[in-house]
Amino acid sequence: MKTIEWIGDSAGHLRLLDQTALPLETKFIDCETTKDLFDAIRRLSVRGAPAIGVSAAYGVLLGLRDIAEGDRKSFDTTFFEVSDYLAESRPTAVNLFWALDRLKKLVKHESELSPLQMRERLLKEAIAIDTEDQEMCAAMGRFGAELIPEGAGVLTHCNTGSLATAGDGTALSVIFAAHEQGKNIHVYADETRPLLQGARLTAWELMQRNVPSTLICDSMAAWVMKQGKVQVIITGSDRIASNGDAANKIGTYGLSVLAKAHGIPFYVAAPSSTFDFEIESGEEIPIEQRDSKEITIGFGKQTAPDGMKTYNPAFDVAPAENITALITERGVIQPVTKQNIAALLNRES
Amino acid sequence: MKTIEWIGDSAGHLRLLDQTALPLETKFIDCETTKDLFDAIRRLSVRGAPAIGVSAAYGVLLGLRDIAEGDRKSFDTTFFEVSDYLAESRPTAVNLFWALDRLKKLVKHESELSPLQMRERLLKEAIAIDTEDQEMCAAMGRFGAELIPEGAGVLTHCNTGSLATAGDGTALSVIFAAHEQGKNIHVYADETRPLLQGARLTAWELMQRNVPSTLICDSMAAWVMKQGKVQVIITGSDRIASNGDAANKIGTYGLSVLAKAHGIPFYVAAPSSTFDFEIESGEEIPIEQRDSKEITIGFGKQTAPDGMKTYNPAFDVAPAENITALITERGVIQPVTKQNIAALLNRES
Repeated sequence: MKTIEWIGDSAGHLRLLDQTALPLETKFIDCETTKDLFDAIRRLSVRGAPAIGVSAAYGVLLGLRDIAEGDRKSFDTTFFEVSDYLAESRPTAVNLFWALDRLKKLVKHESELSPLQMRERLLKEAIAIDTEDQEMCAAMGRFGAELIPEGAGVLTHCNTGSLATAGDGTALSVIFAAHEQGKNIHVYADETRPLLQGARLTAWELMQRNVPSTLICDSMAAWVMKQGKVQVIITGSDRIASNGDAANKIGTYGLSVLAKAHGIPFYVAAPSSTFDFEIESGEEIPIEQRDSKEITIGFGKQTAPDGMKTYNPAFDVAPAENITALITERGVIQPVTKQNIAALLNRES
Repeated sequence: MKTIEWIGDSAGHLRLLDQTALPLETKFIDCETTKDLFDAIRRLSVRGAPAIGVSAAYGVLLGLRDIAEGDRKSFDTTFFEVSDYLAESRPTAVNLFWALDRLKKLVKHESELSPLQMRERLLKEAIAIDTEDQEMCAAMGRFGAELIPEGAGVLTHCNTGSLATAGDGTALSVIFAAHEQGKNIHVYADETRPLLQGARLTAWELMQRNVPSTLICDSMAAWVMKQGKVQVIITGSDRIASNGDAANKIGTYGLSVLAKAHGIPFYVAAPSSTFDFEIESGEEIPIEQRDSKEITIGFGKQTAPDGMKTYNPAFDVAPAENITALITERGVIQPVTKQNIAALLNRES
């Protein structure tokens, strides 16, 4: 089942699996305009940093459906407007900016192409981003699976699987790979309040792939660790700073502290596109604050009094010193230092 | 607002705040029969171990409304029937048995009284149990408030206030006392999955008392600590072992580890009746496992796939070494050692 699919030629449209309807319904959304996609990203119908990046790459084409043949000036203006608009949909997702920047460079570089040729070229690039993402997931799975011991209890947070990427995922790709290698692992999936991506999406993916697993509330993770049921913790990341500080779904920071306190290795799996070399540390990562209702009206039922204040950060940051290793599609970075990160990912201009 | 109130003379009735209607409605239940009360306890309209004990003490009077003057034999038969019936309402609530046993002893001891005199005497005793509970709450509040610095951020978990006791509560009593002393505190209340007592009940109590406060998901507590917003963590407890290990709502253990990692004092407020000197350590405390549906259908809406396994412990245990001090109605125990606990609470009596 494809989570993100471009339908038709370069004037086609984008079909997304509506993640807000899972696990009860398997429903698709057809995005015909960039606003359709912007809204889908905002309400988390598509989510997960790599999936957002791939969606946005296809998404710019939605803003170019009406372009006419002629000179490139008005095409380029429209393209940059569309890109800037989509870049606003999720402020923390670095893959979003990365994908859009890749297209922007291309548009600047391929100035000889006509508008329609340029649109064809952009579709080709979006497909390349999609395919590369699938390959990156597979590579992270291979590298990461070596870190999962036979018989391990593996705790994970949020959703980092085929619903979060174009391929098998980041942290879940590692879990799937270990499972497929025949390692007798058992997964503990945090439900991940407020939006329950763990309960709704990760549990669904784990069941789809027949990986033995148990769903817990976020508040139970520490107790599961204390009881010796967890040998490895692995999460994804939305943005990793030069020093290795990794932003991820709220709750990840706490898990990294608890992992350290219990002597459990804490791994973060993320493709190289997640690394943001423009920032030195996690302190520079802006944290998106989300609507109070996600906490007070969980799934259609009001559970807190009217007027109760909330604090609802979408992300937090696990500091590099709490991360045992970073798992990328190019290999494993351990220990997590600025030098080791740069050495593997090799900035490249 | 009284959560539990006896209305009228010894042939009167019991008025309870219906906690199942909170936070959306403030609704009272008038219990005219012991069955009314039994049902109210069963469906958690009244909850919290001390609150259940006080309700049951008043509740026996509901079964004695039709008694006539005469010899004590038939009075006593009815009394014991009523007591045994109420004892079945929550088979795990220790305070329930404790309150009923106290009345039983009295009935056996005061054999000279006439039925109507005995009923008067029982009302007096129920009022005493109620008043003593209020005094214990107030004493914990006084002792505990000294530990809350001016301007502190105070994080709490689950519900430990006037809805759980006849008075101001345990941990919340400390918070209310500090607030009423004019200390400029700000409370962070964990929503407390799976049953959301923090969102539904604690948030409601904090708003009723105008205590500045913010509701967060359990997974956000660590990040709030990391940002320096929390200077004190305080919870209640359901059972404390001789060595100071304290069982409490699931999530408490994790908070105690996070508190230690962030250098934040972690306090547990509980009356002396919570201490169980029959057990040496927390390892002897049985942990109740609850229904999977609390996690998978937690908001009246199914949020996990059919057939997903869960782990749903109702409690965990904060080890004594993570607890900065225990706050009781007799004073503060710090550091938390078996010797200090025994010295203050002085077994026996």
